[in-house]
Amino acid sequence: MLADDHLGRARERLDDPLPESYFKAFEAVDRDPNFKLVVAETAEGRVVGCLQLCIMPGMSSQGTSRGLIEDVRVATDCRSRGIGEQLVQWAVGEARSRGCKVVELLTHSSRVDAQRFYKRLGFSPSHVGMTVRF
Amino acid sequence: MLADDHLGRARERLDDPLPESYFKAFEAVDRDPNFKLVVAETAEGRVVGCLQLCIMPGMSSQGTSRGLIEDVRVATDCRSRGIGEQLVQWAVGEARSRGCKVVELLTHSSRVDAQRFYKRLGFSPSHVGMTVRF
Repeated sequence: MLADDHLGRARERLDDPLPESYFKAFEAVDRDPNFKLVVAETAEGRVVGCLQLCIMPGMSSQGTSRGLIEDVRVATDCRSRGIGEQLVQWAVGEARSRGCKVVELLTHSSRVDAQRFYKRLGFSPSHVGMTVRF
Repeated sequence: MLADDHLGRARERLDDPLPESYFKAFEAVDRDPNFKLVVAETAEGRVVGCLQLCIMPGMSSQGTSRGLIEDVRVATDCRSRGIGEQLVQWAVGEARSRGCKVVELLTHSSRVDAQRFYKRLGFSPSHVGMTVRF
């Protein structure tokens, strides 16, 4: 799913076996309770969606944590069924239950559909998301 | 410094002693090696700037980590001396040395000066930063 997307296609490597770096990343996410990688599964156990939630403790806003949602993906043939919505609403609820007062995400300027989707779920395009790549 | 800002003024509480929530947040940041709170000090030991860096392991881009910069602040009377620049460049270098291929940040759409500042340091306004507050 990470590769099945106009930006992801160039960035991922779907060799068999997968590059070791994916397994190392999974262990790093799994090890830290502030990071959660969640997946959506069909009744048959097929993984059809995923997202990553980071709970970031921080000093501002009287020391309240922030939630950050990253890498939201839904399998191409399973879109428009509310799977992404369920994943994002789970993440927002989880962040809230862990004391976050805000949940943030960056979505590429070219992902116009994604921006509409997040607006529908209550997100506001309040910030500019700035990035530097090496 | 967190309160000395048009958005922060309404969000912080500078009682003496400070609310317990600030101390708890500091401990949570301090406990997790994926979060770094750094400060800039004058030769006399006065804290005149701060930022928080989060190193987020993740599955996308072949399992490379991302850096996220939050809460960049410089004391009002110490601005335009390159302190913010030194802090941000430290954070970008640190993220890079820890294997990140991208460093992200959200800056409020109203912070036009901040956007110019980050562009000067190599950041691109490639994303929309979306937030939901409770």
